Amino acid sequence: MNYDRGMARTPETNCSLARSLEIVGERWTLLIVRDAFLGVRRFNDFATQLEIPRAVLTSRLRTLVEAGVLTRQGAEYELTDAGLDLLPVVRALMAWGDAHCAPSGARRVMRHDADDGLLDAQGVCETCGGSVATAEIRIEPGPGFDHSRPVKDAVSEAINAPRRLLEPVRR
Amino acid sequence: MNYDRGMARTPETNCSLARSLEIVGERWTLLIVRDAFLGVRRFNDFATQLEIPRAVLTSRLRTLVEAGVLTRQGAEYELTDAGLDLLPVVRALMAWGDAHCAPSGARRVMRHDADDGLLDAQGVCETCGGSVATAEIRIEPGPGFDHSRPVKDAVSEAINAPRRLLEPVRR
Repeated sequence: MNYDRGMARTPETNCSLARSLEIVGERWTLLIVRDAFLGVRRFNDFATQLEIPRAVLTSRLRTLVEAGVLTRQGAEYELTDAGLDLLPVVRALMAWGDAHCAPSGARRVMRHDADDGLLDAQGVCETCGGSVATAEIRIEPGPGFDHSRPVKDAVSEAINAPRRLLEPVRR
Repeated sequence: MNYDRGMARTPETNCSLARSLEIVGERWTLLIVRDAFLGVRRFNDFATQLEIPRAVLTSRLRTLVEAGVLTRQGAEYELTDAGLDLLPVVRALMAWGDAHCAPSGARRVMRHDADDGLLDAQGVCETCGGSVATAEIRIEPGPGFDHSRPVKDAVSEAINAPRRLLEPVRR
């Protein structure tokens, strides 16, 4: 991993939280990572789905590639092993938002695709008791999902339907 | 919780991750929350320890109070129940940083203060097998801690020594 990327550096680098935030602590970065878990791979698809300015997206994708979180294969971006290890971070933030900002329940839930079991906060399946591999996880709208919101594009439509994590969005 | 604080809003509010990032997704916010877990309570102590510009600190503390993450008691800020629920987020980011940005091992480790057992990534004590309450967790320098870094102030010195989470820093 490349540590010397000229990003603003917090003084206390004796903390792994501070180091992590240098890489994923900007507003859009974890949303890009979440979209990558949902199968978004192409620049235009990230731009459309997140409504992120293209210059900002270019900058954030570059940061994530330089930090070893995403790898670029031609026109597509994919999570590296280090990127896949961010799933507990994404899950913890989703769980906190569900608990404190979603009065009608979880907006999305994760299930073990093989047996439909809900995953707990640690990613353990309530049906089979196993820890479920990322590619075996299905994400789908939960009780707090707002179905009245208009869906404006094919990428958003794809990732709002039940789907396995990491399965590429194809249009 | 107050949802309408005029912050930049991501379009996809059907995601609890996006909602969470509206509250804790700015560069300094989770470092302030981490310091609060370490017992920092006073404005000047946050400012000194984080070397954060005072205007930025004022803004971030206001955001966290309005979002119900911190409560202000006179001159001191404390984590609310919603703030205490951010520990899994802090822990997941620390674990990721330890795994991917700390080649000589964890910079800080968390232990069950009562029996010295190391906590795993889910906060379970390896000695007694129990899930440890936040105030019973001791945090201390780990194998990757850089002891050669100069400590410039009393607050940093306090939080770099072994201490229980939430125990107020007193100078």
